[in-house]
Amino acid sequence: MECFVLGIGGMMPMPGRRLSSVAVRVEGQLYLFDGGEGTQVPYKELHLGLRSLDLIAVSHLHADHVLGLPGLLMLRGQMPDPGPLTILGPPGLARFIRNIRADLRMHIRYPIEIKEWSKDADRLAYRDALVNIFWQPLEHSVFCLGYRMEEHQRPGRFDPDRARELGVPAGPLFGQLQRGQTITTPQGTTVEPTEVLGPTRRGRHMVFATDTIPCRSLVELLDAADIAFVESMFLPDDEEDAREKKHMTAAQAAGAAAEAKVQQLLLFHISPRYERRELKRFADIARSIHPNANVAKEGQIIAIPLPD
Amino acid sequence: MECFVLGIGGMMPMPGRRLSSVAVRVEGQLYLFDGGEGTQVPYKELHLGLRSLDLIAVSHLHADHVLGLPGLLMLRGQMPDPGPLTILGPPGLARFIRNIRADLRMHIRYPIEIKEWSKDADRLAYRDALVNIFWQPLEHSVFCLGYRMEEHQRPGRFDPDRARELGVPAGPLFGQLQRGQTITTPQGTTVEPTEVLGPTRRGRHMVFATDTIPCRSLVELLDAADIAFVESMFLPDDEEDAREKKHMTAAQAAGAAAEAKVQQLLLFHISPRYERRELKRFADIARSIHPNANVAKEGQIIAIPLPD
Repeated sequence: MECFVLGIGGMMPMPGRRLSSVAVRVEGQLYLFDGGEGTQVPYKELHLGLRSLDLIAVSHLHADHVLGLPGLLMLRGQMPDPGPLTILGPPGLARFIRNIRADLRMHIRYPIEIKEWSKDADRLAYRDALVNIFWQPLEHSVFCLGYRMEEHQRPGRFDPDRARELGVPAGPLFGQLQRGQTITTPQGTTVEPTEVLGPTRRGRHMVFATDTIPCRSLVELLDAADIAFVESMFLPDDEEDAREKKHMTAAQAAGAAAEAKVQQLLLFHISPRYERRELKRFADIARSIHPNANVAKEGQIIAIPLPD
Repeated sequence: MECFVLGIGGMMPMPGRRLSSVAVRVEGQLYLFDGGEGTQVPYKELHLGLRSLDLIAVSHLHADHVLGLPGLLMLRGQMPDPGPLTILGPPGLARFIRNIRADLRMHIRYPIEIKEWSKDADRLAYRDALVNIFWQPLEHSVFCLGYRMEEHQRPGRFDPDRARELGVPAGPLFGQLQRGQTITTPQGTTVEPTEVLGPTRRGRHMVFATDTIPCRSLVELLDAADIAFVESMFLPDDEEDAREKKHMTAAQAAGAAAEAKVQQLLLFHISPRYERRELKRFADIARSIHPNANVAKEGQIIAIPLPD
């Protein structure tokens, strides 16, 4: 699992700071979280390619999170046979896409499935062969979804010595046991995978949480994630602005991540009011609360190792 | 009159090439032509400010020319008391703006007047104290407007020697005559401005023409303009693509500008298929047809001197 930081800005694109968006690659498959005005440019700079982008998850219907979608949809239409695309998001997303397609006569010749999630809906927003994507309602000025992407569990670690003891010769039968199949040894003994595999191992968990005030569902969403991108629009000096505008400070974001025992915290969705040199203050404040915290960096690629 | 090149790309924003947009400043007042995805970023980089941007002219309703408008509208709302904004464009523009404002719940607290121009409408699209903006229908895959901005005529050159001969003393009376007022000399003689002013001098004329195939109304629009930004999406090698997609080659753009006796030609709206090093070929081809031609450059500022 690799996370690609396409931008870390909030509110509007600025010189030197693109809008908040993260792409995640799992075994070659791409998942994109939010796409504001201009997101397709860092997407191209990072050479992510469109062939394996089949899912876009949208947090909420504010311009700085969705105005890049029409461009991404058209870009995806450049390749031959793009295949269907799924877009997750809040109620109103389908209407936004439908209106803009009609008003600008966009030629899109592949199917788009838009799944809108509202307050009482199922928390599993998406499932494919590699991951589940869950969501939680965050607390913002409009209905807003936080996302948690979980890789499927992997089979337990294979014990070759134990297999040999049970009479399994090294070779194709090893592979069958590792893939969870029951086999018969050359001597006619039946061996179950559970006899030679350790406990099931969990996949990697990534959280994308923007925009919100500190709240219970944020902490639940973050629960022990391997990596979490969490909005921190303001410095604690501007906590009143944060409260009024329904955003968080760096301290609040780090507090939620620490409470949830997140492994690695990356702050993003920084207000345009802060210059580049002030990002260090965000990082310092967050690290005083959560030891493995930093401000995400545009163009950064973060590989998440498999847990044991 | 100064022209600011915000971008020269067509179709979609690319790394290192922003979408086609030009801002023009006349005596402190700003006029913006087109705004695709990301235009607000070079707008900020060039420190154009929003205080005096009261007019945006839109060529046509394709994404690469209008998807930056919502961001610009919100940006303009950042300042206190922004005053009304006028947007010129084709039919459907008002619906596009209205839908996107509603779908994204954009908070815009200043009046926006949208003036849609269709085939048989008046060719004078806008008039203020400084300029007239005329339009012509271009020939593209959708209805598309080319724009011509003309500074108002200026009074003729003042002849101080002639004024003194007529008994006018140097001082405030000189200014009154220059401003077109009839005065009385200390000796009681009446002097008319026409007696001391040369022939009325024309203002500067700027043309913004994208997207189109070569056509009669393009040449009419360009007529002897001081500066013209003209689309040339393709090199002549790809003339068939140009014809099919209703765009021009560098040779066709230069041919129209030469026929119309344009003073200075700047090509823009270049296809993403051409890399930066290929822009020189656009310029060379255009210059072989029109001696004062070049490819516009992102961030370029071109001052147009007053004609004699």
